[in-house]
Amino acid sequence: MTETAPRPTLEAVAARAGVSRATVSRVVNGGDGVRPPLVERVLRAVDELGYVPNQAARSLVTRRHDAVAVVIAEPETRVFADPFFALQLRGISKELTAHDNQLVLLLTEGRDDHARVGRYLAGGHVDGALVFSLHLDDPLPGLIRRAGVPTVFGGRPGWSDDDERAAVYVDSDNRGGARDAVRHLVGLGRTRVAHITGPLDQTSAADRLAGYRDVMAGTDPGLVAEGDFTPAGGERAMRALLDRCPGLDAVFAANDLTASGALRVLRERGLRVPDDVAVIGFDDMLPLAEQTDPPLTTVRQPIEEMGRLMARLLLGSPRDGAAPADGSEPPTGVVLPTTLVRRASA
Amino acid sequence: MTETAPRPTLEAVAARAGVSRATVSRVVNGGDGVRPPLVERVLRAVDELGYVPNQAARSLVTRRHDAVAVVIAEPETRVFADPFFALQLRGISKELTAHDNQLVLLLTEGRDDHARVGRYLAGGHVDGALVFSLHLDDPLPGLIRRAGVPTVFGGRPGWSDDDERAAVYVDSDNRGGARDAVRHLVGLGRTRVAHITGPLDQTSAADRLAGYRDVMAGTDPGLVAEGDFTPAGGERAMRALLDRCPGLDAVFAANDLTASGALRVLRERGLRVPDDVAVIGFDDMLPLAEQTDPPLTTVRQPIEEMGRLMARLLLGSPRDGAAPADGSEPPTGVVLPTTLVRRASA
Repeated sequence: MTETAPRPTLEAVAARAGVSRATVSRVVNGGDGVRPPLVERVLRAVDELGYVPNQAARSLVTRRHDAVAVVIAEPETRVFADPFFALQLRGISKELTAHDNQLVLLLTEGRDDHARVGRYLAGGHVDGALVFSLHLDDPLPGLIRRAGVPTVFGGRPGWSDDDERAAVYVDSDNRGGARDAVRHLVGLGRTRVAHITGPLDQTSAADRLAGYRDVMAGTDPGLVAEGDFTPAGGERAMRALLDRCPGLDAVFAANDLTASGALRVLRERGLRVPDDVAVIGFDDMLPLAEQTDPPLTTVRQPIEEMGRLMARLLLGSPRDGAAPADGSEPPTGVVLPTTLVRRASA
Repeated sequence: MTETAPRPTLEAVAARAGVSRATVSRVVNGGDGVRPPLVERVLRAVDELGYVPNQAARSLVTRRHDAVAVVIAEPETRVFADPFFALQLRGISKELTAHDNQLVLLLTEGRDDHARVGRYLAGGHVDGALVFSLHLDDPLPGLIRRAGVPTVFGGRPGWSDDDERAAVYVDSDNRGGARDAVRHLVGLGRTRVAHITGPLDQTSAADRLAGYRDVMAGTDPGLVAEGDFTPAGGERAMRALLDRCPGLDAVFAANDLTASGALRVLRERGLRVPDDVAVIGFDDMLPLAEQTDPPLTTVRQPIEEMGRLMARLLLGSPRDGAAPADGSEPPTGVVLPTTLVRRASA
């Protein structure tokens, strides 16, 4: 058979099988939606005509599923416990729905399941992937690269510079926002400013710590304690800090959930906020940040908008606000600004 | 070409193209994971050899994706606002992961998007579907039937009896649990027992209302107000009930979120719980049910276990606890028992 020889068409198979063109296409492309007797009939016609579904294979290669995978590199329990993810998913869902794309959320119990996620992404079920909350040494980025699906990351990926330049991601100005928070505390006259970090295998946590250090260069390293972006982690770190540095007069917490845990411990120890200890969070997670006691001063990042922008970049629609750092195409990092929101805690 | 004629194999195409068998298979089955130059090479070999990927097509028809779709027939915002869904997903996720199956959560903005969900299910991306929180007149069950994927429903589907007998579902004893709750209130000497329902286009809400009526037959219809399984709906219904029937002395709320809203309104109106008005919820949603003021007496249903059981029934592993109602195979409805959990509110 040469390149130019006429060959049986999909239409011919459909006519022979007495089914629609769509049914033949569906059988050749997977067949799950077709009743078994029809599948048999189509396959028999394929046999009899010697049909080579070459065009079908070609179209498969480029076919659009109108579906986008979302992978949050956290256990399912954390995905549902942290409102950050719900908010980012809300932005993604709105944008994908506006483009009639199906949001396919791939949930896992943890990192051990990421190889399976890679297989699903490689399996030709989605047109692209949105991936967030990556941790260092997670095999996921490599699996995604091998899967060959277009991907936009939420948050600056933490791998080597070369790869990072090639990756498209949406982030907020974690380092600048952290600097604003700590400068505000210093401006209030606080001198013993502590920091409860997020998990330091995530770039968002590392960048906020860098912003803290930009302002507090040379300060007592005992004023930094590692948290994990959860209220329980904030409680543990706050206790450790108070035990180590009872004279601290301010805390910058890496997110609002962490701050809420810290506030509970400060209250429990009889310390007044902000009189004795001023507290600032990060996220402006509502209603939490308004309902803490006292209401939380925090660094606002546009979480839902970040989700929308990730989806928009993946779908390739007009890139509102997506200015590539160096003017080249395609954009790599898109970094959105943060804002300090003042409430009662600092 | 006859049924028995030798034909070029996948292996022959792989050898001609100088790639692995897996690469050829991936190109023929979709190709998303293969770099374009390799795809071209494989397609050229397919052409040159006149390869008919008939076996590939057959294997596609029966192939396992090791992936299961979960569809919650609610807008994405409600999925993340109601801990019921997180808990049911937890059970599903644990069970699917134990069988190395990928959980594929299909999120939507609402019912208008269900046709797209149907297309995804029909597209050959998953081995089966778990579907819950169905509402009457939702096109989803019909779309799922047409998609032809094995499905287990969470909650008794509300469509006609014939179809229901064919559907496999996992439910809790909503009617029996409601009867237990209302009998407990009557046993406390309460005579004006109100009920705040869930959305009555869902069988869980309709069945709980039926259980209430089993015990309170012939009571004032003004004692029933419709809610929507949310705290805000519980507040609205509680206000309406107090305006209509200021003498009511007990409330059975269709779920714990609804009860939490009702408790807020009772406190706001200066009514003491349980002295003036006894309150019972449904779910035993923790920590909520322990943290309400006062802690909530409620009807416990095993939500996480229901999720696990749905997944187990779909995967066809040993059917713990899945006793078909009439001894026939396959099981249709699997109804798990509920338990009254006494705390301070009744």
